[in-house]
Amino acid sequence: MSTSAKKVAVVMGSHSDFDVVKKCIIILKEFGAEYEVLICSAHRTPDKAAEYAKTAEERGIEVIIAAAGKAAHLPGVMAAYTSVPVIGIPIKSSALDGLDSLLSIVQMPSGIPVACVAIDGAENAALLALQILSVSNRELREKIKEYKKKLASGVEEKNIKLKEILHKEGL
Amino acid sequence: MSTSAKKVAVVMGSHSDFDVVKKCIIILKEFGAEYEVLICSAHRTPDKAAEYAKTAEERGIEVIIAAAGKAAHLPGVMAAYTSVPVIGIPIKSSALDGLDSLLSIVQMPSGIPVACVAIDGAENAALLALQILSVSNRELREKIKEYKKKLASGVEEKNIKLKEILHKEGL
Amino acid sequence: MSTSAKKVAVVMGSHSDFDVVKKCIIILKEFGAEYEVLICSAHRTPDKAAEYAKTAEERGIEVIIAAAGKAAHLPGVMAAYTSVPVIGIPIKSSALDGLDSLLSIVQMPSGIPVACVAIDGAENAALLALQILSVSNRELREKIKEYKKKLASGVEEKNIKLKEILHKEGL
Amino acid sequence: MSTSAKKVAVVMGSHSDFDVVKKCIIILKEFGAEYEVLICSAHRTPDKAAEYAKTAEERGIEVIIAAAGKAAHLPGVMAAYTSVPVIGIPIKSSALDGLDSLLSIVQMPSGIPVACVAIDGAENAALLALQILSVSNRELREKIKEYKKKLASGVEEKNIKLKEILHKEGL
Amino acid sequence: MSTSAKKVAVVMGSHSDFDVVKKCIIILKEFGAEYEVLICSAHRTPDKAAEYAKTAEERGIEVIIAAAGKAAHLPGVMAAYTSVPVIGIPIKSSALDGLDSLLSIVQMPSGIPVACVAIDGAENAALLALQILSVSNRELREKIKEYKKKLASGVEEKNIKLKEILHKEGL
Amino acid sequence: MSTSAKKVAVVMGSHSDFDVVKKCIIILKEFGAEYEVLICSAHRTPDKAAEYAKTAEERGIEVIIAAAGKAAHLPGVMAAYTSVPVIGIPIKSSALDGLDSLLSIVQMPSGIPVACVAIDGAENAALLALQILSVSNRELREKIKEYKKKLASGVEEKNIKLKEILHKEGL
Amino acid sequence: MSTSAKKVAVVMGSHSDFDVVKKCIIILKEFGAEYEVLICSAHRTPDKAAEYAKTAEERGIEVIIAAAGKAAHLPGVMAAYTSVPVIGIPIKSSALDGLDSLLSIVQMPSGIPVACVAIDGAENAALLALQILSVSNRELREKIKEYKKKLASGVEEKNIKLKEILHKEGL
Amino acid sequence: MSTSAKKVAVVMGSHSDFDVVKKCIIILKEFGAEYEVLICSAHRTPDKAAEYAKTAEERGIEVIIAAAGKAAHLPGVMAAYTSVPVIGIPIKSSALDGLDSLLSIVQMPSGIPVACVAIDGAENAALLALQILSVSNRELREKIKEYKKKLASGVEEKNIKLKEILHKEGL
Repeated sequence: MSTSAKKVAVVMGSHSDFDVVKKCIIILKEFGAEYEVLICSAHRTPDKAAEYAKTAEERGIEVIIAAAGKAAHLPGVMAAYTSVPVIGIPIKSSALDGLDSLLSIVQMPSGIPVACVAIDGAENAALLALQILSVSNRELREKIKEYKKKLASGVEEKNIKLKEILHKEGL
Repeated sequence: MSTSAKKVAVVMGSHSDFDVVKKCIIILKEFGAEYEVLICSAHRTPDKAAEYAKTAEERGIEVIIAAAGKAAHLPGVMAAYTSVPVIGIPIKSSALDGLDSLLSIVQMPSGIPVACVAIDGAENAALLALQILSVSNRELREKIKEYKKKLASGVEEKNIKLKEILHKEGL
Repeated sequence: MSTSAKKVAVVMGSHSDFDVVKKCIIILKEFGAEYEVLICSAHRTPDKAAEYAKTAEERGIEVIIAAAGKAAHLPGVMAAYTSVPVIGIPIKSSALDGLDSLLSIVQMPSGIPVACVAIDGAENAALLALQILSVSNRELREKIKEYKKKLASGVEEKNIKLKEILHKEGL
Repeated sequence: MSTSAKKVAVVMGSHSDFDVVKKCIIILKEFGAEYEVLICSAHRTPDKAAEYAKTAEERGIEVIIAAAGKAAHLPGVMAAYTSVPVIGIPIKSSALDGLDSLLSIVQMPSGIPVACVAIDGAENAALLALQILSVSNRELREKIKEYKKKLASGVEEKNIKLKEILHKEGL
Repeated sequence: MSTSAKKVAVVMGSHSDFDVVKKCIIILKEFGAEYEVLICSAHRTPDKAAEYAKTAEERGIEVIIAAAGKAAHLPGVMAAYTSVPVIGIPIKSSALDGLDSLLSIVQMPSGIPVACVAIDGAENAALLALQILSVSNRELREKIKEYKKKLASGVEEKNIKLKEILHKEGL
Repeated sequence: MSTSAKKVAVVMGSHSDFDVVKKCIIILKEFGAEYEVLICSAHRTPDKAAEYAKTAEERGIEVIIAAAGKAAHLPGVMAAYTSVPVIGIPIKSSALDGLDSLLSIVQMPSGIPVACVAIDGAENAALLALQILSVSNRELREKIKEYKKKLASGVEEKNIKLKEILHKEGL
Repeated sequence: MSTSAKKVAVVMGSHSDFDVVKKCIIILKEFGAEYEVLICSAHRTPDKAAEYAKTAEERGIEVIIAAAGKAAHLPGVMAAYTSVPVIGIPIKSSALDGLDSLLSIVQMPSGIPVACVAIDGAENAALLALQILSVSNRELREKIKEYKKKLASGVEEKNIKLKEILHKEGL
Repeated sequence: MSTSAKKVAVVMGSHSDFDVVKKCIIILKEFGAEYEVLICSAHRTPDKAAEYAKTAEERGIEVIIAAAGKAAHLPGVMAAYTSVPVIGIPIKSSALDGLDSLLSIVQMPSGIPVACVAIDGAENAALLALQILSVSNRELREKIKEYKKKLASGVEEKNIKLKEILHKEGL
């Protein structure tokens, strides 16, 4: 994709989310998507978060991926300030096993949707963003189909390995 | 939008989901989106569900909205068979307060994303679908912005009413 | 308290929260506190919410009470934009029995506290606001002590009634 | 049992489930049951999963054991495509402590049952499969009775060891 | 099926469970299965429960369906005393939305499996019992296949009605 | 207490529960209570469990402490077969963080009570048993009062240490 | 039992708990136990609660039953101030389905046990209290055994009615 | 602030809570607040806890921070005995992931509020206490504003580091 291509924004609420979010960035890179990455807290830098979301569209951002933990407001705050689709990644943190992040992101009130993926589901956030971009990008759609084929053939390779293990262990 | 416009599929796992899903259809209608509606169970009509998802893209479907309750597999099954973005609506049913539907939809494994909205969040599913279509449809994007403005002005009208109530009740 | 007294702001995310929030306003009224009431959504009117919180202090607001349901971001958003103490009331809505609202409010990340009360705990939000104001208002502190004494004597009255009921039912 | 005996299929959604599923296979082996093992994802290889379930009966499969984690759709998808009894093993994965897998498997809608066992309950899945086969196999039923007797006598052996430990620790 | 056919036992922990369990009995009746029905509490009539389970096999019982609510021990107690497969139905009672019944039934320890179905999933318990019996009864297997076909065609009928409703409502 | 003193039975469902249960035994020993310890599974050795509970009273057992994990039926089964008070200890096992054990023990149906203590609350189970015995044993009651005084003075010793730590760390 | 008999105290945190607690009192009455009933809040009348618990033993109270909802501290507060056994009844209130009351009562820290029964389990609280008193009261123990026999024969009567219903409905 | 300044009390239920509570004390120290620290158990030292809370106000305490785990009654007990605002910190302990502590603190009944912060949210408890004191202390309010600015600029520094990491990893 050229620099004029539509872009994905990857925003995380805290630098500690990066370990999870990195998997998202790797997928975007792999698919050759344009993206920008930012730490931006709905609570510690609220003005910046608002400004970022408000100006996202004019900067060519077509999908925003926002990751946050605990009372995870970042995806909802992004969605409040833009009409660009927002994908939320609930980050599992030290207590409650990620349930707090999940509910804070997925239970958005009527009018302001967030597309929530699984707890720590960074790869799926990237793939969902790519699927969204592929609505107007057939080339990208084909790449996604290829990716899904590779997932399927990956399962087959695992089956071959499994057969070996079962044989070795006499099962 | 003309008939050749990109289309939204609204699929529900059971006819009992219609009370919730109807709010989704009303929004799509309101925005003039092309859509088709279908009851299609991942468990009772699996072949049909698979076939429907597989052929969605060639029939011009660009986003699939799938609603289901309990062990809500329909959105995930749709996502397995297509590269079109899939939005899942967890339906609250008689037990567990919707937590079962929510987790069955949102906790998708790596590789096959579903964009999950709130429990019974049918309106947001429609709005998210429209936001996704608007990635390549500026006219639709403008309509969404108008809609969000109306939401905001709706809040103002409610404030005027609230003032009256408070006055009347001497608060 | 005179008009120049410190004020409490009561903000709710939706007009449907008023049934619960009303109990909060009644207590504030009863204690003669200055207060202002507003519907203001973190998601539908984010700019207004931000502006309201930012200017709260200069308008003489000393405590903000914010009520919201589902992915309840309003208290956290208020807290992000002001240094005035913010009290959050999680509103129980149609699904998940209020657990979503509770976790979205109480699990705030380090740096930006919200003082969370019980689900639908509107009366306690008012009392907590009054206790906070009473840190610099001894007259108000005495009123709170009177209130707690009345609570205690209310329990005694209930005991008298209970004795009658037990006697009547032969227990 | 001879090769013409009824067979158990053990299917898992991901190779990472094997650590748990292995305990299931060991029990089947121990009882001399015919079985086949496969990695087969409801989401990454949906066609294969469907085909596998559809043809299970004609290949002599009499019980299917399906293990999956997170939004665990594999057992339900198997059950949708076959009339052979399906046993589901919810796998505990990185978040939510297995609750997501459990609810995704056990909360099946009316019409398509899955027999759910405990989270990571691989041994019980095997024993349940054997109990099902034993409905028409008295020899196998006797083996199961022997197994349960051994479980009981195992408890007695543990009691002897416990007595020693208590004695040694002066308790 | 003749009187000498294999039988299903339907046991419930309390007469208040009958409203749910009735749906199970209706399915068994519909399929012409032999069955017997009993109220039998693991806690109030433990000896009877034990005796019932111990003698089940010799009385020709081939599957036991046990329904119970709250700390639902009945299915596990049945399973402890027999080698016949036991299906558990968690009954939703007044508190905790059925989660207590579900966990008390599904989380059985290694060695003694119970096949758990959904909360209040009485129909699926019956269908699972029939699937188990069908392992050695091809006629019954065919009936189950017919039943599943009817479920699928029922979905189609609902689609026709849905079309009418959508048309009538102008959607 | 002499050998003719009333006795406490400590029963656990699995030898793996001993690490937790040991803390219970140590307290009983410390108070000089007569006790007996047994591994006895409600599921693997149901007849033994029933027999044990039925004959408990005649063997001089006055309180039964039963510890179990997962679908923890042992305390309820004990309670079903005896009129001696039964205390249940929910054991935290590998999944669901002990919630399954807790609900399986505490949610007993009307008529057959179990006195449930905290998850892994073995010490409290012992103290509760001693409190129960102390209803007719004043000497034991005094020992319990002494124990509680020691708990209180233990807090004071911790306060002295805390002061030192705060001083050392300059806090 | 004569007036000099050991007594049960029934304490509830709020008069609204009486609907549930009444079932407890009826059982105590039925067994001829001496009891006293009191509304006494750990939060609104803390001094009274403390005083009540401290003096319970000298007034002849041998068991305290304490019922409370939400953040249910009453049983724990009672237990803190007495060495008499304390039974806690978690009351289900408007949110969270009783889970808050249950955890606030059952999860007591080491050293201060509370014997927790099921949510709204008022009858079992009474029966547990009676079982505790029966440790030194053989007459009472016999009454409990009679009660349990009646429970068992009640199940038999229900079976006769069930047979009639099944017959009438042709099942 | 001089010694005559208003003071914060930091109370914890057990010395094992200190690891979490320490972060609270460090913040108070950093802001130059007067504070006192105490271990004081609602259950093991109830009289002391009551006395401490009752006399807090006269000793110049203006805010109480109380940390406790499991059935965390300490904040509620403090609030029952004083009209000074009480902040509760739910401590995560060995089971249930902190949910028990959270609900025991936040779900306070009407009349006696506790201001609950996140599980292990010790820093926010300190900041909330400071915000409360700042209602009558403009100097302190300014310090809080400075602190929030530092939080925001801390996010910017993390962004610079993130850019470096992304560059280094070729993302």
